[in-house]
Parts: sequence; structure tokens; C-alpha cells
Amino acid sequence: MAIDELAAAVDGLPLVDHHVHGALRGPVDRAGLEGMLTESGRAIPGWMTQFDSQLGFAVRRWCAPVLGLPTHAEAADYVARREELGVQEVTRRLLAASGVEHFLVETGYEGDAILSPAEMAAAAGARADEVVRLETVLEDLARSGVGAGELPARFPEVLAERTVDAVGLKSIVAYRFGFDFDPQRPSTSEVVAAAGRWLRTGGRVDDPVLLRFLLWTGVDRGLPLQLHAGYGDPDIELHRCDPALLTGFIKLVEPHGTDLLLLHCYPHHRNAGYLAQVFPHVYFDVGLAVNHTGARSAAVVAESLELAPFAKVLFSSDAWGPPELHHLGALLWRRGTQAALAQWVAAGEWSVPDAIRVARMIGRDNARRIYRLDER
Amino acid sequence: MAIDELAAAVDGLPLVDHHVHGALRGPVDRAGLEGMLTESGRAIPGWMTQFDSQLGFAVRRWCAPVLGLPTHAEAADYVARREELGVQEVTRRLLAASGVEHFLVETGYEGDAILSPAEMAAAAGARADEVVRLETVLEDLARSGVGAGELPARFPEVLAERTVDAVGLKSIVAYRFGFDFDPQRPSTSEVVAAAGRWLRTGGRVDDPVLLRFLLWTGVDRGLPLQLHAGYGDPDIELHRCDPALLTGFIKLVEPHGTDLLLLHCYPHHRNAGYLAQVFPHVYFDVGLAVNHTGARSAAVVAESLELAPFAKVLFSSDAWGPPELHHLGALLWRRGTQAALAQWVAAGEWSVPDAIRVARMIGRDNARRIYRLDER
Amino acid sequence: MAIDELAAAVDGLPLVDHHVHGALRGPVDRAGLEGMLTESGRAIPGWMTQFDSQLGFAVRRWCAPVLGLPTHAEAADYVARREELGVQEVTRRLLAASGVEHFLVETGYEGDAILSPAEMAAAAGARADEVVRLETVLEDLARSGVGAGELPARFPEVLAERTVDAVGLKSIVAYRFGFDFDPQRPSTSEVVAAAGRWLRTGGRVDDPVLLRFLLWTGVDRGLPLQLHAGYGDPDIELHRCDPALLTGFIKLVEPHGTDLLLLHCYPHHRNAGYLAQVFPHVYFDVGLAVNHTGARSAAVVAESLELAPFAKVLFSSDAWGPPELHHLGALLWRRGTQAALAQWVAAGEWSVPDAIRVARMIGRDNARRIYRLDER
Repeated sequence: MAIDELAAAVDGLPLVDHHVHGALRGPVDRAGLEGMLTESGRAIPGWMTQFDSQLGFAVRRWCAPVLGLPTHAEAADYVARREELGVQEVTRRLLAASGVEHFLVETGYEGDAILSPAEMAAAAGARADEVVRLETVLEDLARSGVGAGELPARFPEVLAERTVDAVGLKSIVAYRFGFDFDPQRPSTSEVVAAAGRWLRTGGRVDDPVLLRFLLWTGVDRGLPLQLHAGYGDPDIELHRCDPALLTGFIKLVEPHGTDLLLLHCYPHHRNAGYLAQVFPHVYFDVGLAVNHTGARSAAVVAESLELAPFAKVLFSSDAWGPPELHHLGALLWRRGTQAALAQWVAAGEWSVPDAIRVARMIGRDNARRIYRLDER
Repeated sequence: MAIDELAAAVDGLPLVDHHVHGALRGPVDRAGLEGMLTESGRAIPGWMTQFDSQLGFAVRRWCAPVLGLPTHAEAADYVARREELGVQEVTRRLLAASGVEHFLVETGYEGDAILSPAEMAAAAGARADEVVRLETVLEDLARSGVGAGELPARFPEVLAERTVDAVGLKSIVAYRFGFDFDPQRPSTSEVVAAAGRWLRTGGRVDDPVLLRFLLWTGVDRGLPLQLHAGYGDPDIELHRCDPALLTGFIKLVEPHGTDLLLLHCYPHHRNAGYLAQVFPHVYFDVGLAVNHTGARSAAVVAESLELAPFAKVLFSSDAWGPPELHHLGALLWRRGTQAALAQWVAAGEWSVPDAIRVARMIGRDNARRIYRLDER
Repeated sequence: MAIDELAAAVDGLPLVDHHVHGALRGPVDRAGLEGMLTESGRAIPGWMTQFDSQLGFAVRRWCAPVLGLPTHAEAADYVARREELGVQEVTRRLLAASGVEHFLVETGYEGDAILSPAEMAAAAGARADEVVRLETVLEDLARSGVGAGELPARFPEVLAERTVDAVGLKSIVAYRFGFDFDPQRPSTSEVVAAAGRWLRTGGRVDDPVLLRFLLWTGVDRGLPLQLHAGYGDPDIELHRCDPALLTGFIKLVEPHGTDLLLLHCYPHHRNAGYLAQVFPHVYFDVGLAVNHTGARSAAVVAESLELAPFAKVLFSSDAWGPPELHHLGALLWRRGTQAALAQWVAAGEWSVPDAIRVARMIGRDNARRIYRLDER
């Protein structure tokens, strides 16, 4: 009875997905879909299918019924049904069934291929706000023709303009360099020199001085600052994305009052839990990993509920592209959270009201507070 | 039936808490109490309460009944009841109900605020012996006016005097520097030079040469040497407290015959289990983490029972201050141990007599052997 | 019913043990046996027995009945029964009952003490093929009197001869140096210089230039290349055996088309799962750890089924010596796999046919494909 009450509360909880990207704008074939069910970026070899993975099994189990197929539908049938329904209907069904009431959409990666925040809101019948990726703003500025000498003054201005309506910022320093950077704010002359080198060669920004300049400009901007941490595509070196490496930076940011949100963190999520316990301005989630670990996501969610006070843990899907990822991010988080809390309730360790309250904090209320969503 | 027998044996097992600090000497208000339910050291922000954490929920669940309240009592009621009973009665009840028969009390941190070993023994109706913190002995010696040139010879003498009755030593090199130090014994001239610099500036000792000098003097002293490892307050950098970083030091210590006890270790406890398997003089526990992970502590305890032979695993609470921590350290260790062992018995993998024997080894007998408690 | 079908399928699955060593050739007394139930290499102290470990308990639980003893037999009785039956009968029983149909036997460590691949095949009534250890081939070449100047050209020739019938190669760079090596192929002049130094002093090869030369010669040879990763004997430093440290090397190998197989990986197996997801030529297993974690091996197996597509995970025992290790490697892998898959089936997350198919992929079919065993 009590467990049923808990299950119903978690199932019915309107979620804030505090770090997500848009759903695909156009159709995708099987090879394209499989390529988006992995962080690999490499072509899927002919001797395997990416459907044979925890994520692939979760798609066949949980998304198939939303599209009107039996559970565990074959991959070929699933892809055929997807094409039959069309991209808009697939997206509409999967987003609506996710129960997300508010998407905080990070727009910095391949924005043309995916829905904008406004389009996400329309497709899902939900609210959507924007999170702005620092590196993309700088790369856009470079394309617009900024000089190295004016960049240190110009970037904060451009960032302020670009984020007038944003709820947060995002850094991918983990991808572009790693967390083992000098945590100090670089000097203006260092930034000018690094900008000079970078602007001559072009391409994406991966100079550590410029990445640090972006981080510190983001800190000055004052919006909650998300940092990709842990698991991601092959650009990263996983041991250099351990958020514990950020300890020095976190301490330097502390007096500035800017919140830091460590995203994903797997398999370093216990380290993130430590940081969230000891530093008042540090938060974390286990998004992305929840999707990709499928049936094992309950274990990952449970591991995220150790050291951090419950006011410091958030929900995100980190979905990009296939709306299956938006759907599963929410569904697997609900299942994992329910499983963990129900076990503690059944063992007499937690009360049902506490369990429901904690689910609400993580799934919704913490994000509303941190990003000031009630003020919008 | 067999499971009941196992549960009763673990519940009734008199424990040796091989690394603990004193319980609070005086009363504490809610803000003060919350501040001691985290390793943060920062003020708890107004938009959260530290009671909303695994540890806070465990206090409300398990300590409330010891103070005569219902399980899951509200935090405000719990704090009020605490004040009503008074510090002595709260301490007496929680310590007595912990079932600890022998506390090995580390006295080096804010000793004035907490009970001495003798007072702990009186309050709990138990035995208590002392573990001496190396860094505190050196800082006391510095305050007494030692010269840099005489320090290398004087410190071992002072340590010998200070530890005449001690059962063990403790190092916090993890806090003061990290485990990525040069494992070699420093030369006397290096120590004199480092001491000269340090004595001029004063403050706590964080010079790696001096910290290594303390470690090696501790090795020479021959008492079991405890090292804080893993999770702790914001002074640490978690990745630099991985006990695997101690491998070189462990190998150098091996011929000296001094036992090394890796404390806490979370989230690096699997690395500690490896070290305890391959080096005869290495032991470990998952104290501290067991308290702070609350309902998840059973998972942490289970993870500690992988590579290490059972003769190399110990129990500790690492409690400091609120006697809730002394109580929960023991209670959650019993619950986690029971849960793991009962699962293996139920699956037919372990026998009940083996399970009871292993619980006794970890909870009591290993510590008695290592610290020679029967000879005292 | 469905769960029974799954259990029967996993129990009856003929396995390919893709990384294993020979079973002991001769008898061993209790001290010798205990010394082989740990990676320590140190004498077991008199105040403990290695039987008091997860592995020791698993031997008494699972191997005792194969030798005609009751489950949980006392260690002394177990050793006595072992001696009574004799080494050949003990080996025959334990290997046959393992259900392994094909052993890929790595022959590079103390080959005189253990059975050859052909003898393993005969003793088990199974097939056996050879995996050749790179370091051993070089050390053999050095003993035969090669000059430093001719070594860079001579070693590939010798390796080609030595591996005419081999199915794979093995590197123990993790033991001899660690994974934090320069991933680039060393120049011929660097190799000659390093060889000159090494050939003068003799002993085992631990020069990082020579170890890299071995790796790159192995890559050129094109056979699947196994790398010890994670947990092992005290030669390793565990944090330097994190396979994430290989990211640079993995990327450089990618265009060459040689498969890399990360062995054991514990406790870094989640990092290995990440690498296996994002790099098409990377595979991994949790062998060795499955044996040594005993009743906890189910948790380790479950953790290995997170990020990696199921086509990228393999089974191995890494047994060396006592045939108990060959037996338990298979048995505990079956139990852990069954437990994980049955849980997901029971929760409605996986279908039974999918679960059986995944067990077959990991236990047998992936290895058959990677090592081209059908072509032999």
C-alpha cells in the first residue's frame, strides 16, 4: 500500500530535465539511429548491432509500446514502425509520455539537426528554456571576425547578449582538454596570446587557456554553470574527466557564488557525491549514464544517493537526437529511483513521506530552485 | 532459522571500534548538530537541511527510538528531545546501545571539545585505549619550542613518551598533502631544512618532507599505523587519497614489520581490498562511509568483502562528536554485514558458521589481534 | 518457467575461456595451494589462512562436491581429499565439470609447472589453442643471444615463427611498467639503445621503450592482442593499470585493424566498458576478479554489463595452476550471468530469448568470432 503510494508519486511526478538537447528534426534510418544509441561516433561494425546493448534493449522494451508495438519488439520491426509513424508523431508520443514538464535545453551541439527549445516545448506540450554552451559562443564569435586583442573584453559582452534569456551555461572543457587544468583565472595577456594562436588556425577551441577563460567568464556571468563530467564520446579521456580533479577550481569559484552542476559523472559519480556534500555550490546528476546502462540504471541511481545531501542531486537525460533518449532518460530515472526508495521503505529505513519528498526534490524541486524557474 | 541465528550473532557481537574519536563534551544546537552530520565544514545553506541526507535519515530512523521517540521523528522533534534529555544522557544511551566493548580513540583533533578515552570508557561502560595522531604530536612539539636542528632526534623521543600507553598511531598525510608523496624516508638534512621553514611560519604541518618524516618515525615506533584514506573534509583532493597511490610506500614499509591500516577508503575501498590481499601488513575498513551512506551502507559493506582475506578487514565508525555517529557506525555496520552474509547463506554460497565467524573476525577479533588488546 | 529455461541455457552453455593458463602439472601441499588462491606472492602469515576469503569459501562450497565432499567442507578435509584423489583425477574432474569447450591458453608464465595447451585439451576433453605472451618471446630471444642492433628486425621474425599456430597475443605491460606509457611506436634507434641497456643487465624486460616495441610489433602481427588490466599481483600499481590510461594507444591502434582485449580490469571494469562502447576494436572481460570475489562475483559481472554492447564482452577465468580456478571461473561466471539476466527478465526488462542470446555471445560466440575459431 505504502509502496504503491510511493510508486504512484514517482510515476506521476512532473520532471524538470535540467540538461537535455533537442529531439531530431528529421527522419533517420536504422544505421543512423544505431549511431545515436552510442557515444562512439564510429560506424557500427557489420558483425554487431547497437541494439544489442542495455540501451538498445531498453528501447525495444519501453519505447516499442509507446509506438504501439509489443514489448521487446524486434529491432527491424521497431525501425519500420518508427518510419511508418513519421518523425513528428514518434517525437510527440515519446516526449509527451516522458512526463517532463520543463526542459532546460542545451543548444550548442549541431543545433540545425535538432529541435530548438521552442520547438521542444511545442512537441512535448511542456515548457523549455535554454542553456548556452560557452565554447559555441566563442566559436561563433571567432567566425564573426573578432581580433585577439579585443576578445577578452568582447566575449563577456557577447555572452551577456547571448544569455539574456538563458537559465544556465554549459562547459565542455572535459571534452576539449580534461579537468586537469590550471584552475586559476588566466591573465588578459595570456588570453590574448592564446586567442592569437587559435584565431590563426581556426577550428574548435581546445586551448586550455581559452577554455579556462570561458569558465571564468561563465563564473562572472553568474548563471548556474553545468560541466560535462565523466563518460562521453571518444574525445574524452575518462580518467581526466573525474570531477575530483576540479577540486581546486571549485574552491576558487566558491566565493563568487556561482553554482556548479556536474553532469553525468559516471563512473565517477561517487566522487561527484563527495563534492556535492562538502561544497555548498556543487550539484550533480547521473544523466546520460542512466540511459546507456538500461536495466543497470537502477544500480547507478542508487549509487548516486550516497554522500550528497538530497538537495544537491538532480535529474537529467542528456538526450540528444532520438526522442527515445528523452523518453528513457525520464522513465529509467523513475524506475531506478522507485526501486531504491522502495527498497529502503520496505526495509524500514525510510518513511514513505520522506521517500516521496526526496523524489520530488531530485526530479523537480532542486532544479526549480537552482535555475530560479519560478521567477521566469 | 539459520538466518535468525546469524542475525542474532551479529546483533549481539561486542565490537572493537578500532578508529573513533570522542563524543561531544557539551550541548550543541541544531545548526551545530547539522554541521557535524557532514564533512563539509561550510555553513549549511538556508535552503537545505543536512537532515535531508542518508545520514540525517538514519539519525531520525535509528537514533530517535534510543531517545524515546518514534522512528522517522521530525528533525525538530529530534533536536528538542536531545536538548530535553541533556548531553550526558544522550551520550550514555547512544554509546551503550551501540554494543561496542572497546573503543580505540584517536585524540588528535579538537580534543577539548570531546570526551577523552577514559571518559568514553565511563560513558559507554566499555574499555577505551588511545591512538595518537602523529601530526598533532609534532605540532605540540613545535609549540613547546623545539629547534629545527634538534627536531629529527627530539621527535622520536617525544613520540615514544606520548605513546607509552597507546595502541596505535594515525597519520593524516591524506589531508595535509595527499598520497602522491615520495615514499622514501627523507634524510635528516632534508628534515632539518623543512623544519626550519615550517617553524618560522608556524601553523599546521603540511610540508611533505615533514609528513614523510612523521610516517617513517611512526613506522620505526612499530605500533599499528592508521592512515586516513579516501573520503573526508574539503581539505582533501579525493583522487589523491586513493590508497593505491601508497603502493610504493607500502612496499618500503614491508620489511619493517609495521602494520598499516587504511581507514575509510571510500570510494576507493576496492583498491584497499586489493592492497590488503597482496600485502600481509595491510588492512582496511570502510568506516566513516558506512555512517554517511546510511541506507546505502549495506552496499558499501558488501563491496568491502571482495578481494581482501577476512583476516584483513576491520570495523570502525570514525565517529567524532555527536554520539549518533558512534551509534550508527556500529548499527549500520551490523545491518550491512548481516544483509551481505545472509544473502550468501540464503543462496547456499556460505555456511552459517562461516558467516558468524567472519562477522566476529571483522567486528572484533582482527582488531584484538592487530592491536594486541589481549595483552593489555 | 522462463527463468528455468534461462538457467538451463546458461548452465549448459559450452564456454570459450579466452584467457587462461594451464592447470598444475604436479601435486601441491596446503601452503602451496593457499599461495595460489591469492595474487599476493608473499607467504601466508601464520595467523590467517587464505581459505578465509571469498575465493577460499567458493572452493569449499563449489569444488568440494566435485571431489565427492559435502559442500562447505573444512579446508583440511578438502586438502586431504585432493591428495587422496591425486593431481590427475582432481584436474580431470574439475576441468570436465567446468563445461568449457575451448581453452585459449596463455603459455608465457612458468610454463614448466603447468599443463601445455595440448595437455589441457586432453585433461578436459576440450579443444585448446595458444595465446603467446610478447614479453616471454623477447626474453627467450635475449637468452638465445641476439644483439641490440639486430633485435628490432629479429623480434618480428621470431614472433611470426612462434605464433604460426597461435590465436592471440598477450601483453603484460601493466605489470612491467603501467599503462601511463608514451603510446607512440618507438623509433628503431630508440629500441636499439634500450635493447643495448637491457641486454647488458639481463632479467625480465621492464624498459618502457622495449615494452612499447613489443606492443607495436604485436599490433603489426595482427592477431587479437590481450592486455592485462587492473587487479593482479604486487608488481602492479593499481591506479596505473586503469585501462582509461590506454585511450591514446587505443586511438593509434585503431587504423591498424588489430583487436585489443582488456583482461580482468577490476576494479576499473566500468572504464573498460566505456572503451568497449566507443572503440570498435576494444573488448573486455572481468576474468580473475570473478574468481577472487567469490560470492560477490555476481555484482562484478552485473557491473560489466553496463556501457559495452554485448558483442564486446567476453568470458575468461585467467586461471593459473589449481584447477579449482578453471572450474570456479566458469561456474561463478555462469552464476553471476544467470543472476543478472534472471533479475532483468523477472522485472520485465529483458526477454528470455534475448537473455539467452546475450549469455551465448559473452560465453562463447564473441570469442569464436574475434579469434576466428571456426576457421581453425
